[in-house]
Amino acid sequence: MTAKRLTVLGSTGSIGTNTLDIVRQFPDKFQVTALSCHNRIQKIHEQIEEFQPQSVCVGSEENAQWLKARLPSPRPEILSGTEGLIQLASNRNADLVVAGIVGAAGLRSTYAAIENGRNIALANKETMVLAGELIMAKAKQTGSLIFPADSEHNAIYQSLIGHQRSDIEKIILTASGGPFRDTPLEAFQDITLDEALNHPNWEMGSKITIDSATMMNKGLEIIEARWLFDIPVSQIEPVIHRESIVHSLVEYTDGSFIAQMGLPDMRTPIAFCLAYPDRLPLEGPKMKMSELGKLHFAPVPFEKFPCLSLAITAANLEGAAPAVLNGANEAAVAAYLDGKIHFMDIARIISEIMEQFELKKMQHDEQFPFLNKIETIEDALDADQWGRQIAQSSLTGE
Amino acid sequence: MTAKRLTVLGSTGSIGTNTLDIVRQFPDKFQVTALSCHNRIQKIHEQIEEFQPQSVCVGSEENAQWLKARLPSPRPEILSGTEGLIQLASNRNADLVVAGIVGAAGLRSTYAAIENGRNIALANKETMVLAGELIMAKAKQTGSLIFPADSEHNAIYQSLIGHQRSDIEKIILTASGGPFRDTPLEAFQDITLDEALNHPNWEMGSKITIDSATMMNKGLEIIEARWLFDIPVSQIEPVIHRESIVHSLVEYTDGSFIAQMGLPDMRTPIAFCLAYPDRLPLEGPKMKMSELGKLHFAPVPFEKFPCLSLAITAANLEGAAPAVLNGANEAAVAAYLDGKIHFMDIARIISEIMEQFELKKMQHDEQFPFLNKIETIEDALDADQWGRQIAQSSLTGE
Repeated sequence: MTAKRLTVLGSTGSIGTNTLDIVRQFPDKFQVTALSCHNRIQKIHEQIEEFQPQSVCVGSEENAQWLKARLPSPRPEILSGTEGLIQLASNRNADLVVAGIVGAAGLRSTYAAIENGRNIALANKETMVLAGELIMAKAKQTGSLIFPADSEHNAIYQSLIGHQRSDIEKIILTASGGPFRDTPLEAFQDITLDEALNHPNWEMGSKITIDSATMMNKGLEIIEARWLFDIPVSQIEPVIHRESIVHSLVEYTDGSFIAQMGLPDMRTPIAFCLAYPDRLPLEGPKMKMSELGKLHFAPVPFEKFPCLSLAITAANLEGAAPAVLNGANEAAVAAYLDGKIHFMDIARIISEIMEQFELKKMQHDEQFPFLNKIETIEDALDADQWGRQIAQSSLTGE
Repeated sequence: MTAKRLTVLGSTGSIGTNTLDIVRQFPDKFQVTALSCHNRIQKIHEQIEEFQPQSVCVGSEENAQWLKARLPSPRPEILSGTEGLIQLASNRNADLVVAGIVGAAGLRSTYAAIENGRNIALANKETMVLAGELIMAKAKQTGSLIFPADSEHNAIYQSLIGHQRSDIEKIILTASGGPFRDTPLEAFQDITLDEALNHPNWEMGSKITIDSATMMNKGLEIIEARWLFDIPVSQIEPVIHRESIVHSLVEYTDGSFIAQMGLPDMRTPIAFCLAYPDRLPLEGPKMKMSELGKLHFAPVPFEKFPCLSLAITAANLEGAAPAVLNGANEAAVAAYLDGKIHFMDIARIISEIMEQFELKKMQHDEQFPFLNKIETIEDALDADQWGRQIAQSSLTGE
């Protein structure tokens, strides 16, 4: 068996470092072809010395110079900036591109890898939320396989293998419900930032932790699932499952539900993406079914989580709506993390922006063609940017 | 699409009638080629008129004559007895043989179908418990596919599709634990027959209901799983799951668990076997994940269920041990249902017989060659019979 060649985009982030941990555990199975990061050049410097990639990309020319000065020759090709990142992602030398960059840069580089027919381990949420339709069409055209690296979509992927798509009744996305699943609606006005940042099951960055608290995260995942698995939004159902052990399920027409379960550990879905169709015997604690005790399942209290309903509405609208929603949410969450607005304002602001979006769409303003039709990745990024800016203006105006 | 041709062995039993209910719901997908029953000739008479099979087999020549007198010509071929049943099961006109006959007759006819390369929907437990090794070797040779029709093994089958056997870490068989899962060991001496016959989740025949109460049923399922999925007994783990919603799971080496879940409804696994690789949109109540509430998982309290430990020991011994165990268990349960022994005597008697079996094996008695080596289906049936008779003698001696 020859080693699988990996390009790791965002190698210093949590997806990237977990990926490299797995590579370190299975040196015969993987070879790191390329690495990229934005600013953490000390860390990527160590990674370069350890994994000896052929190419590297960093966020700026300044960072590239810093690296060049420290790496003995023969040193890897060192690229920088957006152009460099797209060049790195496009390299057909990689068998699998781990798309671990968040935000817009992640979308562009993921798309470049797909254009070049590379298989993708997808951890960049924006890719599917902003441009799912374009991405899936391009992947179909180039033969690129997209393996979802987040636990819910990876669980769905695993629950679909070997079964027929035409037999799907429903996809069930489990949701921990975040820190406020048990908080009564009346108490939502008293929610503090510290409480919102305290997720019960997963340790994640602050943006995604707030998205969990508002359940926008589950809404964005519904949009992702809609495209990843080519299934109508009406057949995707979120369910509260507080333990995050059943990572998601597929219901089939005969009454069978197939579920993927495990400890909440992001290494499992990442390892799945890296090794498919094989599996890696990962080190670390294993789940014991007999020690699970109770698993809980309950309906989503939609009245407490308007962000989730807003996302489902945007998913149904398709077109630019999910991108606008995403931009508005990012602006609102940033303002919340800055202490400028209250927890309950997040949904209120997004709701306002979505109303403005609907109005603007009806005007068919030539200045904003992307609001009516997403034809390119740049259209999707423009729609996201539009949502973000309108939300920011609305926030500044307050 | 041409209809799938079915032979239904044991068509008047619970597997058979459920199978025909499904056929009735999907008349375009299935065609009943042959039916068999033992004694319920009124019922099979109705089934013949409804499903118009080409061949029928009943338990006795007398029953055959009864049917012939009542069926207008052109009437189906009507066979009788063991020979007739084997002829019916061997018919290569069937795409799938539903093996719904319990006991020894079930084993012989299932084996005949496999010898003739027929695919099998297997609901006859004795097949795998008595002769799993022979059966699987024969199926491999003839290309016969064996689809398990009971909920646990069907769940494992569904959780293996599309995944690699070499990646299996463990098979986890869920067990409701029966009516005495919460009964303290000290109270086992007070268990009554009525209590033992009152299964919390499933409605089944009295023999299998007692097997659930002693957990011998789970032990026999471990033996079945060992052969069906070609996996060492040490990698099969029973777990108490009182709701019978997660029907069983497969743990893979990367920490992923794949589970099949659903309402406790035997039509789902039967429909799976009938339609594979398709699925049938069954009528009836559907499970809602959001309405499940709590699912419980707990270790098996082995000290309360010695029958389960006896079965695991027999599974590890292989050879004739599982067949002897099965025979001894049938005799003991029959005596228990007759009110001749106490609930706790079941395991005690089986344990005695297994000790006698081990002694006898060491003697290499030429009268009982099958105790040392199972080479044919008749050997397996002889070993079962031996266990049964020794247990009966022991019971009569009391």
